Amino acid sequence: MRIVVLAGGIGGARFLRGLKEAVTPGGGPPPGDADITDTNVTDVTDVTDVTDITVIGNTGDDIHLFGLKVCPDLDTVMYTLGGGINEEQGWGRAAESWSVKEELKAYGVGPDWFGLGDRDFATHIVRTQMLAAGYPLSAVTEALCARWQPGVRLLPMSDDRVETHVLVEDGEGRRAVHFQEYWVRLRAEVPAQAILPVGAEDAAPAPGVLEAIAEADVILFPPSNPVVSIGTILAVPGIRQAVAEADAPVVGLSPIVGGAPVRGMADKVLAAVGVESTAEAVARHYGPGLLDGWLVDTADADAVPAVEAAGIVCRALPLMMTDVQATAAMARAALALAEEVRG
Amino acid sequence: MRIVVLAGGIGGARFLRGLKEAVTPGGGPPPGDADITDTNVTDVTDVTDVTDITVIGNTGDDIHLFGLKVCPDLDTVMYTLGGGINEEQGWGRAAESWSVKEELKAYGVGPDWFGLGDRDFATHIVRTQMLAAGYPLSAVTEALCARWQPGVRLLPMSDDRVETHVLVEDGEGRRAVHFQEYWVRLRAEVPAQAILPVGAEDAAPAPGVLEAIAEADVILFPPSNPVVSIGTILAVPGIRQAVAEADAPVVGLSPIVGGAPVRGMADKVLAAVGVESTAEAVARHYGPGLLDGWLVDTADADAVPAVEAAGIVCRALPLMMTDVQATAAMARAALALAEEVRG
Repeated sequence: MRIVVLAGGIGGARFLRGLKEAVTPGGGPPPGDADITDTNVTDVTDVTDVTDITVIGNTGDDIHLFGLKVCPDLDTVMYTLGGGINEEQGWGRAAESWSVKEELKAYGVGPDWFGLGDRDFATHIVRTQMLAAGYPLSAVTEALCARWQPGVRLLPMSDDRVETHVLVEDGEGRRAVHFQEYWVRLRAEVPAQAILPVGAEDAAPAPGVLEAIAEADVILFPPSNPVVSIGTILAVPGIRQAVAEADAPVVGLSPIVGGAPVRGMADKVLAAVGVESTAEAVARHYGPGLLDGWLVDTADADAVPAVEAAGIVCRALPLMMTDVQATAAMARAALALAEEVRG
Repeated sequence: MRIVVLAGGIGGARFLRGLKEAVTPGGGPPPGDADITDTNVTDVTDVTDVTDITVIGNTGDDIHLFGLKVCPDLDTVMYTLGGGINEEQGWGRAAESWSVKEELKAYGVGPDWFGLGDRDFATHIVRTQMLAAGYPLSAVTEALCARWQPGVRLLPMSDDRVETHVLVEDGEGRRAVHFQEYWVRLRAEVPAQAILPVGAEDAAPAPGVLEAIAEADVILFPPSNPVVSIGTILAVPGIRQAVAEADAPVVGLSPIVGGAPVRGMADKVLAAVGVESTAEAVARHYGPGLLDGWLVDTADADAVPAVEAAGIVCRALPLMMTDVQATAAMARAALALAEEVRG
């Protein structure tokens, strides 16, 4: 089975860990390499065949810091699936130290609001050096993953530079700021008036992206941010259409539970695009042209009829990624719903 | 008094610390800023007037590593005089950690034979970012020194790229390697057939270099490597001539004591340029056209007549930089010899 997942950062990465557990219980060999015959798989769907997972990662929140190319979402997926993530914070490296950052501050060189640890810096140094040598981001990502062995094929949505900017207005006036500045420095506390995926319209999908979508057996939208994560991926010309036209069922999981984002500040950027922070509104935002199935939390079970009335098959189940097993159950439910809507 | 010092790395930096102590005993305010009236100065020369020290630093051993511009000699001077040096090893930062290097190794990205610590990396990141933004190396060095306050004016010999390569021949054949590869990776154990300051002939002295030499009251050659440190500085068109034509007396200190380098492997590169490893031979290598005075160690006192016969005033005294006070005594002797040859 070929699964394609459109993923942002922390939410996407954690979902993917659950998905891997769902298709290779107990953390066996990478799905792509293994003949999976584990008989413990007794869940709602048969996932005992060889499974390939291709992740199309958001690069709209990439940022150049200190002359280095930082790809937060790709790295969060890579570190999480490769066992290097800082589990508590969900981003950055475990056992991290902060000497470089301290020194940069001592030099008076900013910004100081973005958390780059020493181990993390090495990733950005390697990436920047390879990009400067002429490798596209997709090749660089593959090279970095050769170390991390995430057990999935991780593709950036595009090799072209796309940077999500946010139009804000506050005491400093109306201006567009980089998404990271909006998200990390301003903590999304300044009203966002628009989300601008700068460069997206001229970007091309990275090699393999459209092919993976076309050949997928299942396409999943994890509970990532529908605007600045999955929305940005879909903004790369060709990707939305490829998903819409794919033979595979497309199933999403709501990042909104009980009217609020499970984590992060998705409500702020949903407001900027005129979408309510409800599980139903996000499903309608994607729309039946993209989504075949939608999973909402049990807290939002009363939204199921409305979502189904919009032409999207909907089921309610616990959607809190409290641990790998809970997340694996979500992934299995998503795969089961895909089989159901495939009909 | 305006002192100009041509300096390499560790030897140059340690001599400069002694020189600073000599002109501002007890580590007073930076010489350039202070009205020095310390009455403890009772040594061989009167250094109680305001003293400015300009250091012309070797950049021939600069190297690009991991896409970053590393300037080992400039940094050794800056860290040593600014209080950030690793005292034991003489290069790199105190209280250093090595996470970035470990990670680069985990990525399989080399070289791994060059010691870049986390704190050190920050310097190279800032430098590389400023260079990429269009600042010349001299401006970058000034910006870095704004933090370190080395108490001297530190100028790179040139803003242009000069890289010392060494022609070697071993089992891998005859080839030119970067000086750092020869020095650090090969530990100067492979015979050097020639020293090639690549780019030097097209380089220009950095802004202020020729002016500082022309306006100097004293010019000093510390016990730095006469070939790959001071020799490289002199290889930048205009600098050798400026030193030769300067009104100021030029006094050097022998890096060779008792027929061997005090530290490092200067004998190897001296052999490559056909110069014996003796205090006398190094004086003759510089020649009376450059040098007015030469200090040799007491172990080499018998070389004094021969050096003087070559037209260079020579004195013997202990030349081991065992601590700051011993080094300060060397610096005072150099300044005294400068006054003597000034006549």
